[in-house]
Amino acid sequence: MSFRPCIGITMGDPSGIGPEIILKALQRDELYHHCRPLVVGDARVLKKTANILGFECTIHSVDHERDGIYQPGTVDVFHLDCFRGEVQFGVVNAASGEAAFRSIVRVIEMALEKRLDATVTAPINKESIHLAGHYFSGHTEIYAHYTGTEKYAMLLVHDHLRVIHVTTHVSLREACDLVEKDRILEVIELLHDACLNLGVRAPKIAVAGLNPHASDNGLFGWEEEREIIPAIREARQNGFNVNGPVPPDTMFAKAMGGHYDGCVAMFHDQGHIPFKLVGFRWDNKHNKMEVSGVNITLGLPVIRVSVDHGTAFDVAGRGVASETAMVLSIEYAIRMALRN
Amino acid sequence: MSFRPCIGITMGDPSGIGPEIILKALQRDELYHHCRPLVVGDARVLKKTANILGFECTIHSVDHERDGIYQPGTVDVFHLDCFRGEVQFGVVNAASGEAAFRSIVRVIEMALEKRLDATVTAPINKESIHLAGHYFSGHTEIYAHYTGTEKYAMLLVHDHLRVIHVTTHVSLREACDLVEKDRILEVIELLHDACLNLGVRAPKIAVAGLNPHASDNGLFGWEEEREIIPAIREARQNGFNVNGPVPPDTMFAKAMGGHYDGCVAMFHDQGHIPFKLVGFRWDNKHNKMEVSGVNITLGLPVIRVSVDHGTAFDVAGRGVASETAMVLSIEYAIRMALRN
Repeated sequence: MSFRPCIGITMGDPSGIGPEIILKALQRDELYHHCRPLVVGDARVLKKTANILGFECTIHSVDHERDGIYQPGTVDVFHLDCFRGEVQFGVVNAASGEAAFRSIVRVIEMALEKRLDATVTAPINKESIHLAGHYFSGHTEIYAHYTGTEKYAMLLVHDHLRVIHVTTHVSLREACDLVEKDRILEVIELLHDACLNLGVRAPKIAVAGLNPHASDNGLFGWEEEREIIPAIREARQNGFNVNGPVPPDTMFAKAMGGHYDGCVAMFHDQGHIPFKLVGFRWDNKHNKMEVSGVNITLGLPVIRVSVDHGTAFDVAGRGVASETAMVLSIEYAIRMALRN
Repeated sequence: MSFRPCIGITMGDPSGIGPEIILKALQRDELYHHCRPLVVGDARVLKKTANILGFECTIHSVDHERDGIYQPGTVDVFHLDCFRGEVQFGVVNAASGEAAFRSIVRVIEMALEKRLDATVTAPINKESIHLAGHYFSGHTEIYAHYTGTEKYAMLLVHDHLRVIHVTTHVSLREACDLVEKDRILEVIELLHDACLNLGVRAPKIAVAGLNPHASDNGLFGWEEEREIIPAIREARQNGFNVNGPVPPDTMFAKAMGGHYDGCVAMFHDQGHIPFKLVGFRWDNKHNKMEVSGVNITLGLPVIRVSVDHGTAFDVAGRGVASETAMVLSIEYAIRMALRN
């Protein structure tokens, strides 16, 4: 058997669907051929979840990654003793927030110590994390803080679509102000490196305009001329294969068709709308969303892949959550670990 | 045979792919079962195009819509004598602009006189129209002017996706300023009526937020609270089934899954990105875009459906253009004419 990277998977918020989708993903024997999956969290939470789901697997609690069995039928858990009492499904609470938070911090430490080859995160609830006294706005900020990273960005991946953002969780007006040459250059470089890490040779990158029709030569807005075009010019001088500014409404259709290897989006929804349209499937009969996209944090000294959905408190504990995005996340983590 | 509405189809810019895609669409015999298609433009342009394409059809020039044959194998043209000389494919020029412009004005007049049941427009070149001395920014403005319409909006349609815009061809910063309650109410009503006209009973409408996550309760931006929510509230009081503000990045995935019948987008790319992603298909081998979406102008006293692509000057005269969007446009025009 060839090298199997050790993938640390955080348990996620115990009140959400995290433990459930992890157990469902690890029912897939083929994953064990390609990696050694190690859940980081509380073994009791995983055991209870397995009972609820009626899974026959063995929850194997370990104190060191070398003690894992890493064979189908066994779920190895790096036990943190971070959650006691009963799980309250679908409820914001400090105990769940604390357990989720400690799992993340531990997985980061282990990755920094090279005891894990990559990390995958299950969803957390921001409010519960805050209730537990940890004031971070999400996983990405926790990773940035505990790895001392300043320049980072989120990459959304689904099939041919690989999207990085210049701005994310700010108002649209603020996003317009934050479209700046230096930041655009930064994400072009992060995206280029990420494409290489994902196995794309000589990545062809597209940079979107901010305005409709990429401003139609200045007819609608000036950010293309003052910030985006200078960034593209400098990136080309630095040897990157960069196109743009591309009219945002055709860029993603072309990328899906394989015309670009990576896309730079100027603001949250410019990138998230196309990503979710192709990666998410609304099931109108069951009134739920199927998600098959992943989210990779770029710029960190460790590999971090995440499912691109939330804790789904509305269905937690009911056994109906889909593990598709979790399986994909583990697969991407393996792929990146093997190239690192 | 049941009632066949008379559909006026403008020739479009002779230097573009308009005449070609019209002739290709009218090779489809089944269209004649459902409508009487009447091309409005210059019969000589259509004849030359048929020769270039090697089509066997008869170009039948008429001076009155009652003289059309309206049978497969015959293309009836309401002859305007608006273009003389040779067609210069792929070139911006005043002669083509003038011919395209006169076709549009005539089709509008005929529709207002109830001599046509609906109109379909082939693509024009804005610069050529300007060179000919007509300073309109596009079809929509020409229709609005010649029908004396003040409140109108463009509806993009592809499968389950029906998208109307609060703002379109302005910078993103200006779009933020133009997100106003009254305009949102206006497009909700236009969209509701359009859905009914397209055969949707009791339309369920979604209104997007402007900001990421629809501002997350005011965390990123204030337009939801000050303009969008009050508009939704008032629309509900007026009896419309309106949902929102919906986070823009999940709204379109849900709409594609059939969860909403119509979507209100706040700005150009918020609606155009998802529309083109599902309606456009990039052919990487031939380096071209296949388009299968249509564009309907709402609020006019006449029916107007348009292909959602341009003149494609780069391939004009080469016989390689796809008629998919033209066929769809004619089909939508028929459907709306029958319900009118």
